[in-house]
Order: sequence, then structure tokens, then C-alpha cells
Amino acid sequence: MTIPTLPNNYPLLIKQILKMPLAQASQRQIVYRGDQRFTYPQFAERVHRLAGALDALGAKMGTTVAVMDWDSHRYLESYFAVPMSGCVLMTANIRLSPEQIAYTLDHSGAEILLIHTDFLPILAAIRTRLPKLRHLVLLTDAPAADISLPDGFTGDYESLLAAAPAQRDFPDFDENTQATTFYTTGTTGLPKGVMFSHRQIVLHTLGVMATLLMAGLNAKFSREDVYMPLTPMFHVHAWGFPFAATMMGMQQIYVGRFLPEVVLKLLATEHVTISHCVPTIMHMILNAPAAAAIDLSGWHVIIGGSALPRALCEAAMARGIDIFSGYGMSETCPLMTMSQLRSTTLDAAPDRRDAEIATRVAAGLPAVFVEIRIVDDAMNDLPHDGKSIGEVVARSPYLTPGYAGNPEASEALWRGGWLHTGDLGMLDADGTLHIVDRLKDVVKTGGEWVSSIGIEDIILQHPAIAEVAVVGVPDERWGERPVAFVVARPGADATDEAIKAHVRVRADSGEISRYAVPDRVVFVEALDKTSVGKLDKKAMRARLAASVLAPS
Amino acid sequence: MTIPTLPNNYPLLIKQILKMPLAQASQRQIVYRGDQRFTYPQFAERVHRLAGALDALGAKMGTTVAVMDWDSHRYLESYFAVPMSGCVLMTANIRLSPEQIAYTLDHSGAEILLIHTDFLPILAAIRTRLPKLRHLVLLTDAPAADISLPDGFTGDYESLLAAAPAQRDFPDFDENTQATTFYTTGTTGLPKGVMFSHRQIVLHTLGVMATLLMAGLNAKFSREDVYMPLTPMFHVHAWGFPFAATMMGMQQIYVGRFLPEVVLKLLATEHVTISHCVPTIMHMILNAPAAAAIDLSGWHVIIGGSALPRALCEAAMARGIDIFSGYGMSETCPLMTMSQLRSTTLDAAPDRRDAEIATRVAAGLPAVFVEIRIVDDAMNDLPHDGKSIGEVVARSPYLTPGYAGNPEASEALWRGGWLHTGDLGMLDADGTLHIVDRLKDVVKTGGEWVSSIGIEDIILQHPAIAEVAVVGVPDERWGERPVAFVVARPGADATDEAIKAHVRVRADSGEISRYAVPDRVVFVEALDKTSVGKLDKKAMRARLAASVLAPS
Repeated sequence: MTIPTLPNNYPLLIKQILKMPLAQASQRQIVYRGDQRFTYPQFAERVHRLAGALDALGAKMGTTVAVMDWDSHRYLESYFAVPMSGCVLMTANIRLSPEQIAYTLDHSGAEILLIHTDFLPILAAIRTRLPKLRHLVLLTDAPAADISLPDGFTGDYESLLAAAPAQRDFPDFDENTQATTFYTTGTTGLPKGVMFSHRQIVLHTLGVMATLLMAGLNAKFSREDVYMPLTPMFHVHAWGFPFAATMMGMQQIYVGRFLPEVVLKLLATEHVTISHCVPTIMHMILNAPAAAAIDLSGWHVIIGGSALPRALCEAAMARGIDIFSGYGMSETCPLMTMSQLRSTTLDAAPDRRDAEIATRVAAGLPAVFVEIRIVDDAMNDLPHDGKSIGEVVARSPYLTPGYAGNPEASEALWRGGWLHTGDLGMLDADGTLHIVDRLKDVVKTGGEWVSSIGIEDIILQHPAIAEVAVVGVPDERWGERPVAFVVARPGADATDEAIKAHVRVRADSGEISRYAVPDRVVFVEALDKTSVGKLDKKAMRARLAASVLAPS
Repeated sequence: MTIPTLPNNYPLLIKQILKMPLAQASQRQIVYRGDQRFTYPQFAERVHRLAGALDALGAKMGTTVAVMDWDSHRYLESYFAVPMSGCVLMTANIRLSPEQIAYTLDHSGAEILLIHTDFLPILAAIRTRLPKLRHLVLLTDAPAADISLPDGFTGDYESLLAAAPAQRDFPDFDENTQATTFYTTGTTGLPKGVMFSHRQIVLHTLGVMATLLMAGLNAKFSREDVYMPLTPMFHVHAWGFPFAATMMGMQQIYVGRFLPEVVLKLLATEHVTISHCVPTIMHMILNAPAAAAIDLSGWHVIIGGSALPRALCEAAMARGIDIFSGYGMSETCPLMTMSQLRSTTLDAAPDRRDAEIATRVAAGLPAVFVEIRIVDDAMNDLPHDGKSIGEVVARSPYLTPGYAGNPEASEALWRGGWLHTGDLGMLDADGTLHIVDRLKDVVKTGGEWVSSIGIEDIILQHPAIAEVAVVGVPDERWGERPVAFVVARPGADATDEAIKAHVRVRADSGEISRYAVPDRVVFVEALDKTSVGKLDKKAMRARLAASVLAPS
């Protein structure tokens, strides 16, 4: 008996994503800040020209091309032209420290850097540490006449595109060819480089589309929608959505440097219907002075990067926003789960609105082709009972195979053949994933695991509190004890005791453990955040350890 | 410079499709004829049991397992269990002649046959010609107590499932492993076996989902929909939709033997919202006596297999049906294009309703990852001007690599590296494909190509005509001349002359060539059809050549 295998002569390549809108949606546009507009055929020609420009700079299969830019049409062009040329796109995190930016650019082996004028001071500080860089290309919004090329630059983006041919052939190659790389900053050590192949990005694009588009009650999208990312494009390919939006030929809006008033203006004037962002950004937009005058109803927003707090969810829903969660991370391309309302769940719920909110803030259902398990330390599966808490591990066709040049970290990431997220979660009987906490952020107190996120969610429901972060601090008697950092709402009046009392009510009712009531509530002007806008609990713990704020 | 390729340890396998609804939609059902209902976990267990039953019959990686059944939950179980076990699923076309069925079963190398009681007479006639068959398994709707196993049968389906373990491991294997085979009957020669791998079926499933679900104006689906195929499951995996519906955890209804009154009853009682079928079936349903009493509004129907005639489109729309076209063939898995309304097209049209109907009857836009070209004999691209007619050729990740054991036909199919459809079409500037005719059905008359489909469409608009087929017959002077076979509506009064005059009006207006007016209109009781319900023009041409009906 022979096992018949079939020849496979159609590699999954990013160039194929671009073929769709050319055929399907040439009348839609790629819009930059409302100022510049490109039809899909124009966009495609610019992709061809960028690839030609890279050829002229000597880029070959395997050359790493880095980008430092705000969200822009240029960034989208690099998403296609760089990997379509067989090069590796390195999306530099411009919010890292200059030290870290230098490390990541050099570690990626970048030979060509496309860099926006806003980041020239950073470049000046680190240029000598980047010996592999052969070409610098200037990205600027200035008119051609006003451009003066800094020393050491090969040219400006628009001039190089103008000089390149309008058409370039993109031959087939191995679908496992690396397409992208970028760096994730963990809690310890140097930034780690993740990497994704053409096959992975194509499958992720299909996975995003199939997962997003199958929703029935909320989150109903189509290619008639207008897409505006509010996630930096250096961060996990802006969650992969620009690839999906381009494949569908959707109208796409890119905001440049993130400013709430610009975002709100574009939302209104460009009739944006779908965005995605971290909770912090949604919080900023809802609280921007300009937000009051703008109709936000009909805007669909996917929240990721951090858990969607219930209070933020309700505040957005009150404005008519269809808000819901996605879950993923740099290592996972990133989509792992998405929360979508289901009639079967809602119809069976005693309180429909409560069930709806609980669904919207949950991490949600595994995306197409994502396998999720909740396991104990020995990789045994835990029951799907909505109670048992274990580490979330995953398999899917689009997870990073490891960290560049870091076999030890790669091995730890893939322990037992499953990707370890470092997140603690639980699964419902119906397959819905709830993220309880980061493994490193959970507070272990009195022999119990207490979710810092759970306490934060309760504190945020206090009317005086705008932002909150709970961290565990070492305690001789209890192992650890929770401490809350809070930012008060402007003009609000609150005390340490009032907040603790607010949490204690929920402990008295049995909803949470009494160990979960924080020992201290520390009022601060602003919370420490990481470069991608997440709470930086490592910094907060360091602050507590070093300061007089250390718990008694 | 090295070209970095990434390891790929996640093969695309059909088992992964089944993993989704287990997590997501356990409360939906697989329903057989309204009588039997299985939740998704029950369905999944039956898939495991079927795989275990095949193990018990000695099936190994590469063993061909054939099925002869009406559309059923059992068929759906075999769609998964057979390939998940590494076996090849052969879906036998039960509408072929016993001769052809014997040929295709034997040619596929089938060792195990799952066969419904209704087809036992056929089996009795061909059993001696099937020496490779080792096991026969009886499929029956009869209660267990009433089953008497025919001679030579190993067991009945339900007993074998009951005896098998409830759980079976499905290890990973090469994604290019062959998953399915079935036979297509061309116009000449023996049936030809096409074949598809796990990777191809998985990618096709994602392609169907992404293409179908991105629609914005009509054809808005979600996993909340209720799916009932009206295409035989032996025909190109029922167009691949059962895989997509299962992945989404949709409610699925299988009708068993096709009877219009059963279909109409299930439509109403099971609240079906999405189906697909050939035009003939839609025609039968709309004209069934029971149809008048049933609300068909909100039913979405994809028409494929043959062009959707404008008259049928309008008749369905008048009943509130969201009807539109898909285009594909056995060799293409099958989805190549789908017609979807787009606001950009409709908003720009002088007559919105006319533009809508023109869109619905067009083959439509290329599906995700399908490349379509219109070429001349030398494979040169023709302009996308909505006028230039050439052969439709395609590339996509899910086309059959060839015909089993038929290198000559395979080479012709893939001439120049593109799959030749044998269809003539034209492309609009916006990428919409219009199928003009089968290459072999086009009428070449007076040096012009005349589309038989175009003439049929006009004749169908005559109130006296229920069905029509136009074929070309040899003519000394003109090369070929069109002849129309028509079926009159019951009680309608029409003549050869009246129909020709009806067509001549359109020729006089310049809409069609004057060569397109048929020489003769032949009234018949029924049109010749192929085993899958398509017009059999080969038979009609033979009838003309052989009979006194030969044109003067």
C-alpha cells in the first residue's frame, strides 16, 4: 500500500494577498491622515516601485529591511514590497529606549533602514552602533521642495520610488521563507526577536478573515467597512489586520503619529467603522474633549494587548461602540482568540446584558486553526469548567518557531511542543477562554492565587478611579500581598480606605477571596507603561521595592 | 547572504477543521431529514467511531474508501473520518451508469465501500467487476431490528460504529497526503479521476469562508445561519461548504434522497437560511406545488454548475430569495469565483436593479487566492474590457494536480502552467468574470462566436418556455447554425416561429448577432441532462445528427 501525496506547486506568498483588491476593489482608497489618498492600483504601483527601489539599493533574497515610521501608507507599502522581494521586514519599535532600538536593529542584521524624520535624533545617537546598515532612506511628510537629505542618507522615499520602474516581477519562492521579524520586550533580559514566514502571514490573514467574518450578532464586518488601525504598525503587523483589509480591498485610513484629536477627526470625516487598539488608547479617545461632539455609534473596536476592563467596556458601549476583545501576543502573529456574541449563549443566560458584557470582556473563542489548552506545570489538561486555572498554551500554523539566535528562550517557549504564553487562564465548557492574569503578575497570597486583573476590574468600577494597576509585593507572612496603584479622576475625591472598602464589599459577598483586598492603595499621577502602552508592573514593583512606599 | 526559511511544524490537515466546532458550537446540530439530530460532540464521537471501524476493517494510510449515499450525516462523517485516518475518500457518482460506476470504483482502487440500500441493485450488477473491494458496509435508514445484512457484507454502519472505540488518536502526517478523489465525466472518453490533498481542502475551506463572508450587501452570512446543501455530496465535496459549515459550527440539514416536497418541508421547519444548487434544482423547487405556501424570503442560494439564467434569477428574487452565482468545476475543488453585490458598482450604475441582476447572474469575482486569466490560444492575456472573449484559465492553491493515471489529459489540463477550464469568458475592468459558454458549446456561425447560453437566456424570457438548450449543428454554408430545444410551460401555446421572432427582436435591436437567431426550435417533453443535472448537449447533438430532426 502506498501513501499518495500530491504535488504542491502553489506556495502561499504575501504577493497573493495583494492580487485580490487589484481585481476587486480598485475604487477604494488607502488614506494617510486625510491628506493623501491612493487608489488600490496606485497603491499596488507604489509597492512595485518600492520593491524596485530596494533592488536599486542592492537588496537581495534574505536582506533585512527595517522601518521606523508612524502608521502610514508607506508602512503598508513596506508590509508588501519588502517580503514580496524576498527580503525580511524588520518593524522597529520606536517606543523602546535608544539603547534597545540600537540593539534590535543591529541584532536583526538590518542593512537598509526606512526612517521618518521624527526619529532622526534617535538615529544620530545610535548610528555608530549600526555598522551593518548600508542605506538610510528618509520618510517625510514634507513637500519635495522642502526636503534636505541628512548626511549619510541614500535618498528620500518618494524620490527613490519615482526613480524605480512602475512594474517589477515577483517570482515564486519557498513559502517558508522568512517575511518579518520584530522584537518583544519581556520582563527580563534583552529584547527577543520573533519571526514569521510568508506561509504563516498568509494563513494568519485567512484566519483573521474567517474568524472575524463568521460572527453573527456583533462584530459583523464586510469589505464595505472602513478600517483604521489604532495599533502601531511596528507591533505584530498591526495585529495582521492591514493584510486582511488589503485582501478585501477595504477603505483603509492611517493616522500617522497618534494624537487623540486627529484620530477623532478622521473617525468622523472618513466614516471609520472598524479599528483595534489597546485599552489605554480607547480610554484616551473616550476621555478626549473632542469625543463628546462625535457620534461613535456603529464603530466596531477590537481590544487587545491587555484585558478589556469591564468599566471601559461599559463606557464604550454607552457611546454605541461595538467593543470586544481579542487575545494574542507577539509570539502568536498575534490572533489566538476573539470574543463574539453567540445567540446560543445569550438566549440561555439569566441576565442577557450581563452575559453580553461577560462575553465582550472575555478573551473569547479560539480563532480558526488555533488550538488552546489550559495546563498545569506537568502539561496535564485542566477541566473546561470555567474555574480551573492553568497556563494557556497554544498550537497553530502561525506561531513563531522561536526567538532569533536564542535557542534557550526558544526551547522554554516551546516546552513540550506547545507555545507557552505565560498567561494564566480558564476555559468554559463552550470553549471560551478567560485570561486570569499574566503568570508573573498573579499575586500568590495566603496559599491562594489572586488575579491582579480581577482586583483592578473591581477598583475601576469605583467612580473616583480612572486607572489602576495591582502588583504583588513580598510579604513574610502571606508570601505576597496585593498593592494597588491608582490614578484618580480629575476632581474626584477618594482615599486609600474608601477604595479598600469598595473592594472589601465584594470580598464579603464571596465574589472574591478576602486575600484579594489590597494592603495599600497608592495614588499616583500616571501609571508606568511599557513601550506599547501596557501596564509596566515590573517598574511598579521596582518602585515599591526602592521607595518609602514599600508596604508595611 | 543566506535566505532564511522557517521550520513549519503545523501541517494543514482536515482534522483541524473538526476541532473548531467542538470548542465553539456544541449546541448546534447536524440534522438528517428532520428525523435524526446530532450535536457537534455527538457528531465528533461518530467520526472517531467511524475511523475506528475503518481500522477494524484493516484500513491503512492510503486505503481508498468509497461512499455511495444520498446527502446525509453519514456522508459528512465520512468527509472527516476517512481522510483523518489517512485514507482516501472516493465519493462515487450514483447518477452515472452502472458501467461507469463500476469503472470509477475499480479505477479508484476502493477496498471498502459504504453503500446505501437504495444502490444495492446497482452493486449486484457490477460486484464481479470489483475484485479490489474487500469490505462492504451497509448504510440504511431502517431501525436496527429491521436490518438484514445482504450476502458479502461485513456489517451495517451503525453496528460497526457501535463496536468501535469512542475515541481514536489522529496523528499528524504530511499535509500533501491525498484526501479525496472523484470522477468527472467529460464529453469524451472514460470518466477522469480528480484528487485533492488535505492542504488543498483546508485552504479551500478557508477560501470559501473568507470569500463568502466578506460580502457586504447581499450574501451576508455568519455562523448563526442554518445550512442545507442541495448539491449531491458526491459532487466536489458538495462544493466544499460542509467543511466550512462544520468549521463554523453551523446548524446543518441533510435532505437524504432529493425530493422537492421534502426539501420544501425542511426549508420551513428547520429555518434554513443558506443553500446551494444547480439551476435545475432551483427551477424544480420554485415550480413545486408546495412552494407557493412557503415563505422563501431570507433564503440565500448560491447557484453553480451551470450559468444562472436571468429569468430564473428574477423568479427567485420575486420570492424574496437572495440568489447569486458561484463558478467552479470538479477540477477546481471547486470555488473559483462568486458574485457579490458591491456598493461601488451599484451606486455608479444608471439602473440599479438591472446592475444588481447583472451582478447576480455573472460568475463574479475571483475567490480568495484564485487567479483568473482570460487568454487566447497562445496564452496571451486578453483585455479586461467586458468584451474580449477567451478561455478561462486559473491558478490557486486548491486545483487538482491532474487526472489519476492519465498523464496525457493532465498535461492538456495544465497546458502552460495554468489550469484550462474549457470555458469561454470575459473579464470586466473591475475583475468580474462572465462565462460566455463552454468552449465546446459555443456556436461558430458565419465566422462569429455565438454564445449558446446567451440565446438560451433570451428564449427563457418568453412566457411560454420553461426550459431551453441551444446547440450548434454543422452547416455547409455557415460552419454551424444554432438549434434550440425547448420545453413549453404546461398549457402554454408557442410555435417555432413565435420563439424565433422573439429572438429576432433582440437581434434587430443590435443586442445580439443576427446569426444567433436559431434555425429551428424543437419542442420536447424534457431536455437531456447529465448525471449531475446539467444540460447534456452532447446527447442533444447526437439526437439531431441521428434523427429526422436534422436541420434542413
